[in-house]
Amino acid sequence: MRIFISGPSGVGKSTVIRELLTLRPDIVLSVSYTTRPPRPLEKDGKDYFFISREIFEEMIQSGAFLEWATVHGNLYGTSLQWVEAREREGSHVLFDIDVQGVRQAKAYGSPGCYILIIPPTMDDLKKRLDTRGTEDSQTLALRLENAKEELRHWELYDYLVINDTLETTVREIASIIEAYRHAREVVIGGLTWLRAIV
Amino acid sequence: MRIFISGPSGVGKSTVIRELLTLRPDIVLSVSYTTRPPRPLEKDGKDYFFISREIFEEMIQSGAFLEWATVHGNLYGTSLQWVEAREREGSHVLFDIDVQGVRQAKAYGSPGCYILIIPPTMDDLKKRLDTRGTEDSQTLALRLENAKEELRHWELYDYLVINDTLETTVREIASIIEAYRHAREVVIGGLTWLRAIV
Repeated sequence: MRIFISGPSGVGKSTVIRELLTLRPDIVLSVSYTTRPPRPLEKDGKDYFFISREIFEEMIQSGAFLEWATVHGNLYGTSLQWVEAREREGSHVLFDIDVQGVRQAKAYGSPGCYILIIPPTMDDLKKRLDTRGTEDSQTLALRLENAKEELRHWELYDYLVINDTLETTVREIASIIEAYRHAREVVIGGLTWLRAIV
Repeated sequence: MRIFISGPSGVGKSTVIRELLTLRPDIVLSVSYTTRPPRPLEKDGKDYFFISREIFEEMIQSGAFLEWATVHGNLYGTSLQWVEAREREGSHVLFDIDVQGVRQAKAYGSPGCYILIIPPTMDDLKKRLDTRGTEDSQTLALRLENAKEELRHWELYDYLVINDTLETTVREIASIIEAYRHAREVVIGGLTWLRAIV
């Protein structure tokens, strides 16, 4: 089972995902392949699989990716084979993914539960971005514009979850995941007898 | 919010719905209009709204029904106005509905969470229908054929819930309803600011 979670910068997506993973050991975070060089403390196979551009491009050619994207000149992608191996082990795979990646995953026909985390209001998001306090007003305006660009594509998602308080948001996403276990597309694969009724 | 629940005869749908309504006082069962005469103990406005065929046909003409159907020569239908009044009061409306009704509700564009309760296996359903013990083999065969006819249309539903044990099924449907509160189509209505981002 695949769970795709997006949310604009500042909405608190990373914290929500971290809490969710603590709560649910049956959910594993997807590890992407990237051509970006590792940063200090980043571990190959845990944070990313670090590979060369040449190998990455071969993987694109052979259809190995569930989705891939270019960010600041570096390539990032999710290996379909890696995801399927986790699914066979009985895990659900969670994707921390942006709108670009979601559009691709859908275009490649990946089943999954698509969730967008949204702020209570635009003003609220502005405040959250502002209180980081690390940006000048121009950078802030850019980050806000990027956030709007993410939110603009809400129609791509099955569920919209307002992140008001962390605890509630995590519980709500957990119940969405519970429900998705019974979604037609998830259940029907195992029900040969039902598909056989004609 | 509208919750449509279907399930073939013998699957235990009525018991599941009864338990769900006990558990969740914010959910009300939809009361249909019918031209069928009331049976002993049936109350107008509780079990059904009993009306004449003439009035029923006028209601069809004026587009008053969310769905309507003919069963054994009698007309049955759900008034859109009645449903909307319950929704304004803050209740969720649960429809105990067959595949014919679901097809109509969808054709009329009703939003809602569509759930089909299914048996663990076809053999299991056969046993459940059989242990009622009130039918001869011909009636049993007919009931089984009707059940298959319902199950055949599983693609109409968002969720398929296997009724193995009552308690689990009720809990699973409750979590589906919880999740549906965050479904894009439910949430977006109240999010003017999100729809305004262009």
